[in-house]
Amino acid sequence: MLKNWIPEEVPSQEEIKERLEKARRELYDLQMKIKNRKLPVLVLFEGWSAAGKGSIIGRIIKNIDPRFFKVATMAVPTEEENRKPFLYRFVKQIPEGGKFTLLDSGWMEQTTREVLDGTLTEEKYETRIESIKRFERQLTDNGYLVLKLFFQIEKEEQDARIEKLLGDRDTEWRVSEYDRWQNGHYKKCRKVFGRYLTDTNLPAAPWYIVNAGEKKWAELQVMETLVSAIEVALQNEAHSVPLLQNVFPLKKTPELKDVELAGKVLEDEEYKSELKRLQKRLGELHNRLYRKRVPVIITYEGWDAAGKGGNIKRITEALDPRGFEVHPIASPEPHEKARHYLWRFWTRLPKDGHIAIFDRTWYGRVMVERLEGFCSENDWKRAYNEINEFEKELTDWGAVLIKFWVHIDKDTQLLRFTERQNHPEKQWKITEEDWRNREKWDLYEEAVDEMLQKTSTVYAPWHVLESVDKKYARIKALKIIIGELEKVLD
Amino acid sequence: MLKNWIPEEVPSQEEIKERLEKARRELYDLQMKIKNRKLPVLVLFEGWSAAGKGSIIGRIIKNIDPRFFKVATMAVPTEEENRKPFLYRFVKQIPEGGKFTLLDSGWMEQTTREVLDGTLTEEKYETRIESIKRFERQLTDNGYLVLKLFFQIEKEEQDARIEKLLGDRDTEWRVSEYDRWQNGHYKKCRKVFGRYLTDTNLPAAPWYIVNAGEKKWAELQVMETLVSAIEVALQNEAHSVPLLQNVFPLKKTPELKDVELAGKVLEDEEYKSELKRLQKRLGELHNRLYRKRVPVIITYEGWDAAGKGGNIKRITEALDPRGFEVHPIASPEPHEKARHYLWRFWTRLPKDGHIAIFDRTWYGRVMVERLEGFCSENDWKRAYNEINEFEKELTDWGAVLIKFWVHIDKDTQLLRFTERQNHPEKQWKITEEDWRNREKWDLYEEAVDEMLQKTSTVYAPWHVLESVDKKYARIKALKIIIGELEKVLD
Repeated sequence: MLKNWIPEEVPSQEEIKERLEKARRELYDLQMKIKNRKLPVLVLFEGWSAAGKGSIIGRIIKNIDPRFFKVATMAVPTEEENRKPFLYRFVKQIPEGGKFTLLDSGWMEQTTREVLDGTLTEEKYETRIESIKRFERQLTDNGYLVLKLFFQIEKEEQDARIEKLLGDRDTEWRVSEYDRWQNGHYKKCRKVFGRYLTDTNLPAAPWYIVNAGEKKWAELQVMETLVSAIEVALQNEAHSVPLLQNVFPLKKTPELKDVELAGKVLEDEEYKSELKRLQKRLGELHNRLYRKRVPVIITYEGWDAAGKGGNIKRITEALDPRGFEVHPIASPEPHEKARHYLWRFWTRLPKDGHIAIFDRTWYGRVMVERLEGFCSENDWKRAYNEINEFEKELTDWGAVLIKFWVHIDKDTQLLRFTERQNHPEKQWKITEEDWRNREKWDLYEEAVDEMLQKTSTVYAPWHVLESVDKKYARIKALKIIIGELEKVLD
Repeated sequence: MLKNWIPEEVPSQEEIKERLEKARRELYDLQMKIKNRKLPVLVLFEGWSAAGKGSIIGRIIKNIDPRFFKVATMAVPTEEENRKPFLYRFVKQIPEGGKFTLLDSGWMEQTTREVLDGTLTEEKYETRIESIKRFERQLTDNGYLVLKLFFQIEKEEQDARIEKLLGDRDTEWRVSEYDRWQNGHYKKCRKVFGRYLTDTNLPAAPWYIVNAGEKKWAELQVMETLVSAIEVALQNEAHSVPLLQNVFPLKKTPELKDVELAGKVLEDEEYKSELKRLQKRLGELHNRLYRKRVPVIITYEGWDAAGKGGNIKRITEALDPRGFEVHPIASPEPHEKARHYLWRFWTRLPKDGHIAIFDRTWYGRVMVERLEGFCSENDWKRAYNEINEFEKELTDWGAVLIKFWVHIDKDTQLLRFTERQNHPEKQWKITEEDWRNREKWDLYEEAVDEMLQKTSTVYAPWHVLESVDKKYARIKALKIIIGELEKVLD
């Protein structure tokens, strides 16, 4: 078992009382600083059943303004949550900047349960641990305070507490089958817990073992640890994190200037017959992936007026409307901006068997946010790796992920802009902003090239759709999607 | 086994040649940037025996100016190295800023060997892994590029290579007993290697598995990984790292203003008899700790003219001169300044059974370096934790670590300064700088208080020596040292 913060001995009641009062005053004062600095605070309460997590959470929140915190009891995942990636239901809960989320059990509880009931094999466990470590590291890299508490009680103490709960009709219901099983298999559980704690003891999000044998003492340990962790987090003023070496094998991708656009055209007739044939095929595959419960994510990025909308339309025409969703991505809303930038994509992930199509994506971070200065240089430079990790998460989950860059040249864009301008029924499609972006074409091209190079991983490569002839691009997209789906369905 | 960077298939010889040339040119160009940016680069070559680490190192260094790199073959530790902490011989090798160190096997090789031969029990293995992770993280936090390569070959390939070496009188000697044992126990070794790779796969210092079945291809993988890692490291311009939560239990320590100085005096007679008695006792203990091979580290910090020198003298008088060393610490020399700031202390650690006394210490980082701006704010704020980790390393190794703050008040200092000034034989003891420091007394007091609070861990607490009466302070120091030594010797 980890040895962090195992206090040697319980202080006197007198001392506990005094220190508790001090910690409460400090936490009260820190609240406003957290709010002003927009620090998001995520506190995980994990540990043995009947160790008193719930009642300590109840005491802690008495010291926090109710507008600033949320308690989430995670229990077991719902049917719907089971059809999303493992981390989905936890990511959903991460707080906005300036607020607390207190989780009553989290990803440790679920992971160790799955080890204990045999669901997680050794290999899957290792993948899970990698994914948890990346998740927590991304949170702390993005300025989150992640505080992880493990409530430790001994077997006899746990037994006594369970017996006490069972002895009272009002509390009986709180004891689950699993709680009793845990006590009966204390040693086995301790081994699994101990390994998990060691495996996930990250520098920026370490574990604290709370000696939970005595309530007031446990409360004090939590309060003092919380105060100390907040004080450290508030010191990290100018948030900037060293960039990490890339560990994901990359696929060589051409630079945009080397993409041949000329000659990528289709005659009307061929287009029509191909479109019909491919859409029919895609419809069939959609049914099969629904039954096989394969999640599919298709993303579109590309130049303004490159033809994303029409391309997407040719895909969705072929699909059963109950089985897909299109997410047009605009600039983030305030509650989205206040969280990790991938949060709004995590929460839009499809259920397995479903297709999600993103019209613009998380790549906004390394394009518009980069060029318009909506995030810091460190933020977007770090994002290549964060995005590769995110997409690894998705493909490890079993998702088919297809990424399109819809490509045209600068002259073609001008032609289409002018046409839109001159046709009243198309004018809604063109804005001042489009013209402004166009002026930054070269800067965008540089950013896109860097993005294509750094995020074309072997598990989620970019596909460039040559779209000077939109028909050509549509047929190419359909073929790529069909090809990728056939790989997993056949 | 980790799946980082296992390339799918070997490219054609043509492609390898072309990419190798490109990578060579790039590495050549990067050299100057590394030099200008003073980036220290540490490359670890680990992996199976006969996997070709040595010959690849030979090829890599052809692309680097000989003034900028050093190759260190670590082999097994010497008798002397075995009497130092495990990491000692590796820390010694870390490069200066602007230079490369290439290690032909390092702490992985030694650790996995010790697991395989049974020296490292499960518990010791876990402590070792923690210590390695901290070491690597401290390096990357301090701006080091740490690149870790594991050379992977299959059992049959290894067998064939060993046979080939054995078949030639010129190469026969290169095959060790252990190499053959490894091949005979390939599966067992793979399990131990695999676990180590997983356990130490840090975000800022990840592992790369080099497919070493084919020489040119292995060389290319190393070259491309090296180039890519350097490019990332060079992007981390303004080096600043988020502060970490404290995980070390602290001992409450009074603030300096609450230290009672009045009345802490000793009469001459009592002093003399106590001194004699205690020095005799210390001498006895010194003999015993020599035989028991306990390393002892005693550190002195304190106000100018507080009486450190005289205090140290009363300790060393009692010791066998063959068994101790005093390290007066001045400002670092250029070759020390160009490395991790703890390097010059690591290299001065005593052998077990010996005593090292430091007259000023690594705490300079959070006092003079902080106040004089010799390091960045992030550097000294990070240092509290780095120092706690360093001292944990020392006490885990088995060292007795005793830290003194020699304390006087401001008036006493003035008195002593003036006396020094007025007595020609003492004038060498007082400089302009002492007067300048004195002007910053309040700032120093603040820094010292923060230091005492944040680095008084339960395993290495601070002891304040009230030294208005130097005799009192000397006797107190002797008593504390004797008490701590008795704890481990009795």
